[in-house]
Amino acid sequence: MLEFRKDPVIGRWVIISSERGLRPNDFSLSSDPQAEKTCPFCPGREHLTTQEIYAIRPDHTPPNTPGWRLRVIPNKFPALQIEGHLRQRADGIYDKMNGVGAHEVIIETPDHGKTLSDLNEQEIREIFLAYRSRILDLHNDKRLRYVMVFKNHGQAAGASLSHPHSQLIATPIVPKRVSEELIGSEAYFRYKDRCVFCDIINQEMDDMVRIIESNDHFIAIAPYAPRCPFETWILPRNHLPFFEETPDSAMSDLAVIMMSLMQRIDIVLKRPPYNILIHNSPFDYKFPEAYHWHIEIMPRSTWVAGFEWGTGFYINPTPPEEAAEFLRNTQLAR
Amino acid sequence: MLEFRKDPVIGRWVIISSERGLRPNDFSLSSDPQAEKTCPFCPGREHLTTQEIYAIRPDHTPPNTPGWRLRVIPNKFPALQIEGHLRQRADGIYDKMNGVGAHEVIIETPDHGKTLSDLNEQEIREIFLAYRSRILDLHNDKRLRYVMVFKNHGQAAGASLSHPHSQLIATPIVPKRVSEELIGSEAYFRYKDRCVFCDIINQEMDDMVRIIESNDHFIAIAPYAPRCPFETWILPRNHLPFFEETPDSAMSDLAVIMMSLMQRIDIVLKRPPYNILIHNSPFDYKFPEAYHWHIEIMPRSTWVAGFEWGTGFYINPTPPEEAAEFLRNTQLAR
Repeated sequence: MLEFRKDPVIGRWVIISSERGLRPNDFSLSSDPQAEKTCPFCPGREHLTTQEIYAIRPDHTPPNTPGWRLRVIPNKFPALQIEGHLRQRADGIYDKMNGVGAHEVIIETPDHGKTLSDLNEQEIREIFLAYRSRILDLHNDKRLRYVMVFKNHGQAAGASLSHPHSQLIATPIVPKRVSEELIGSEAYFRYKDRCVFCDIINQEMDDMVRIIESNDHFIAIAPYAPRCPFETWILPRNHLPFFEETPDSAMSDLAVIMMSLMQRIDIVLKRPPYNILIHNSPFDYKFPEAYHWHIEIMPRSTWVAGFEWGTGFYINPTPPEEAAEFLRNTQLAR
Repeated sequence: MLEFRKDPVIGRWVIISSERGLRPNDFSLSSDPQAEKTCPFCPGREHLTTQEIYAIRPDHTPPNTPGWRLRVIPNKFPALQIEGHLRQRADGIYDKMNGVGAHEVIIETPDHGKTLSDLNEQEIREIFLAYRSRILDLHNDKRLRYVMVFKNHGQAAGASLSHPHSQLIATPIVPKRVSEELIGSEAYFRYKDRCVFCDIINQEMDDMVRIIESNDHFIAIAPYAPRCPFETWILPRNHLPFFEETPDSAMSDLAVIMMSLMQRIDIVLKRPPYNILIHNSPFDYKFPEAYHWHIEIMPRSTWVAGFEWGTGFYINPTPPEEAAEFLRNTQLAR
């Protein structure tokens, strides 16, 4: 079964993806991340993965062989499948449709033991270029409306393989968290005639207490109402609704601020598990003046997990002004 | 700092509660749950807790001494404080107010080593009676609009003490997850002139594939679009917006279905960590025909944590029809 189902109360779509055939015994909380000696994402084991869709590799090397610096492959255990029709339909009072979409893995480096904060500017830039290329390609599929790019780092953040990788899920629906942001941003725009994210950037440039760092094209801040300690956002300083329209001239600045921010987080929080997401406008979004793409980084700690789950309350013991100060004052080895 | 802050994009209130004075080094992922020999919730250590607000104990025993079967105390490290004014105000483009509210702990049994599924009907009934009593009492505080009752069981579900307990947080705001349900239920009611939860119950009674069990007053189901494997809801079968208006005559049925459901979950999933929440109407809710109080139970597994976090996508490998069948077919020792 690969199916989207809609919660009839709040309208949230859930993916029921039972292809993996899990039974109750499979729901243990611990799972060993794959060791390097058998890791399917390491160079030389390309035959263990699905066929690459995109790669950054020297011109003379054939696909699915070593030599690459970055690879994108379809997820071997996809939550969605690319073939088929949506077939939206009723199921009694409920609503469902087929689990059509794409689920891809971006292998960020051939080096099993590295993390984002160990990569250099060029390597991080190539990751963002890969995201951009895949989003532009998936935009050609007219069934799809959204591409969510995300990274789970560390077991506690949900990573099942330790080799550095991120993922993308392309769907015929806009995920709830993003559509909430769109609704909020549109309401703000209608009232103020300004983008709420542009207003946030201006407020933060005035206050100077939640800024971690900035460069010509990007700014990194601790948001005013963070859900967890050390939640951090990166935003383009000028209004830009679509990640995939980020020009080449800004990509280096994006890589630089991302690299530096991940180094700061790894130093201050001692290499914590984390989740990173790109919040982007949906394909062909009709209100682009209201929304502003950005990156959300959420380090994981015990404080996050338990309390919030399902209550919708987030209790955060670290004021963002303190978190920003810790991160800002970190000495980077450069 | 004890402060509510509002996210300017989606309008979510977050509690910034830095009284505990945490620093980056405090954010380790592991914390030992308190051992029985030093557990402050065990009988004989009442002097280690705050003064009890409510207790079920023999008439001849004074407060804060052994003999109790259940105690309610203010949380020693509250996320909110009961004294003070809200002082809602602007902070540049942002919004904040003082962290006024109540944060209480319900110690469910004197027996350190038990879990919910080990308690008998009478003991579980007394827990629900304690919730009801506390909600009715907190309703007298006109600053408050909502009481969220929840239980985190097991470290992976966020419990920091292993002695069986639940918590409540009373706030001047309605938590986002609940207000989303209210908005959805109201929209459904306006369209259909029926409560969406009543419709769900009728649909489930017709389909008979997601019901786990039922009795005269309550029904336990696996919801149609569950966020995680073995997510389970308990609902009153007849329309009832307010938990605190559950009559005495129904409380035994509630205890019976809760006891049996927790036994089923503990058998099928081998005593998993879990979160339990009561979703209730806000105080003085103006549209009670649209909303129906219910309990949500979410067992925790690796599947839950990583993926959903921040994406707003839930990917669930277990269809609710399969989960319900496993739970329904479990042989209970009775």
